[in-house]
Amino acid sequence: MKTKPLILVTNDDGIRAPGLRSLIEVMTKIGEVVVVAPDSPRSGMGHAITINSPLHCDKIKVTDGPQLEYSCSGTPADCVKLAINELLNKKPDLCVSGINHGSNSSINVVYSGTMSAAIEAGIEGVPAIGFSLLDFKWNADFKPLKKYIKKISLEALEKGIPKDVVLNVNFPLLQNTKIKGMKICRQARAHWIEEFDKRTNPMGREYYWLTGTFINEDKGEDTDEWALNNGFISIVPTQFDLTAHHSLQRLNTWTL
Amino acid sequence: MKTKPLILVTNDDGIRAPGLRSLIEVMTKIGEVVVVAPDSPRSGMGHAITINSPLHCDKIKVTDGPQLEYSCSGTPADCVKLAINELLNKKPDLCVSGINHGSNSSINVVYSGTMSAAIEAGIEGVPAIGFSLLDFKWNADFKPLKKYIKKISLEALEKGIPKDVVLNVNFPLLQNTKIKGMKICRQARAHWIEEFDKRTNPMGREYYWLTGTFINEDKGEDTDEWALNNGFISIVPTQFDLTAHHSLQRLNTWTL
Repeated sequence: MKTKPLILVTNDDGIRAPGLRSLIEVMTKIGEVVVVAPDSPRSGMGHAITINSPLHCDKIKVTDGPQLEYSCSGTPADCVKLAINELLNKKPDLCVSGINHGSNSSINVVYSGTMSAAIEAGIEGVPAIGFSLLDFKWNADFKPLKKYIKKISLEALEKGIPKDVVLNVNFPLLQNTKIKGMKICRQARAHWIEEFDKRTNPMGREYYWLTGTFINEDKGEDTDEWALNNGFISIVPTQFDLTAHHSLQRLNTWTL
Repeated sequence: MKTKPLILVTNDDGIRAPGLRSLIEVMTKIGEVVVVAPDSPRSGMGHAITINSPLHCDKIKVTDGPQLEYSCSGTPADCVKLAINELLNKKPDLCVSGINHGSNSSINVVYSGTMSAAIEAGIEGVPAIGFSLLDFKWNADFKPLKKYIKKISLEALEKGIPKDVVLNVNFPLLQNTKIKGMKICRQARAHWIEEFDKRTNPMGREYYWLTGTFINEDKGEDTDEWALNNGFISIVPTQFDLTAHHSLQRLNTWTL
């Protein structure tokens, strides 16, 4: 690529999140960067879009650097729609989302605002990658991730991501050990068992907090969960054709 | 099935929506019905869940009938989590979501609150079906759909929906013609081209309304779009393993 690639950067933890700032630092070394991110955290937003209320979008500058930045009142998917269809004057060469503070591996991909932004870009024909670190802390250490993010992004720009596929990249939480490498994986079969913490407010009305326990039912060594639990970075090619093609034939035996 | 099946009913248009009321009427003829639905419309919510604020849930009665009803302050996915993990004392035999006022065919499945509720049930191991009518009107005529919904639901209860698969059922908008039948389909490849309607509020601040045009790039006669445009009900088996298995091999050629 002779001219600098145009890179759209977004996330779901909000435009001031340290994970986003780390991602911007890596991307400004690779290309021309435009940031369009939610004005406040939007975790667990899934692929929500804003239909029934107006969107605000302000040009701001959170940290020094060559990047352009826009703060948006919408969801992560809104940010991508607004960027591609309104704010940018050409289609980005790459869209990166994250670095998410927390896991988007296995079934978490379904609830993830980070991945919904990347998927939205993919739907609109823009190569896209979501990055997440298995650490919920606001001040998590993103520094060791940078060289891997650069490598994956450059490879994506050079080789191209398969059509209608978006990459879901998760980094393991490491304390004293080092990252062992990267693995192309499939999404592990897993689910959450919810526990609702039931309380009573000062006015006597009951309410619930959603909490839960993650259950991995899938011990396959080709899964993202296995990779992450064994010190590897997981890269799952993720698609938005949700058709369960393998079950078409069985359903055709139904009497309808 | 000797005892009456337990059926969980939910939606994304809110507990007072006529589409939900029609679905309840069908389901009370089949089984024991518990309704857990959002207290107000939650369209375009995708698979959002409520992590950062408490959930309220009130037992109410909107229309006469044998069903139990709960109105919930959360998203469609929250409603299903709350129902399965907290409100019901056994796992439902079926979860139905809808009838959505509007289309959830092709790429719309990704943005759909209706389908996110069905998918959440699927993730938790409950057979699930989302129903939608291609008519956004609040007073749309749901009556002609009832016999089809009953047939599909009875077939699902009897034959079982394949594991890790959720059905996405869409009904065509018909004026003077009749429904031609039902078709098992794949999700058409399509996307929206967004148009942002930019305005200025009385205080001089700019804002946007999200609007768009649906673009179907896929003329396949095995797609949901083809079926709906030709007077058929489309049934797409939908999965929540988002892995693009076909692209694993190609990504393994990357230098990582």
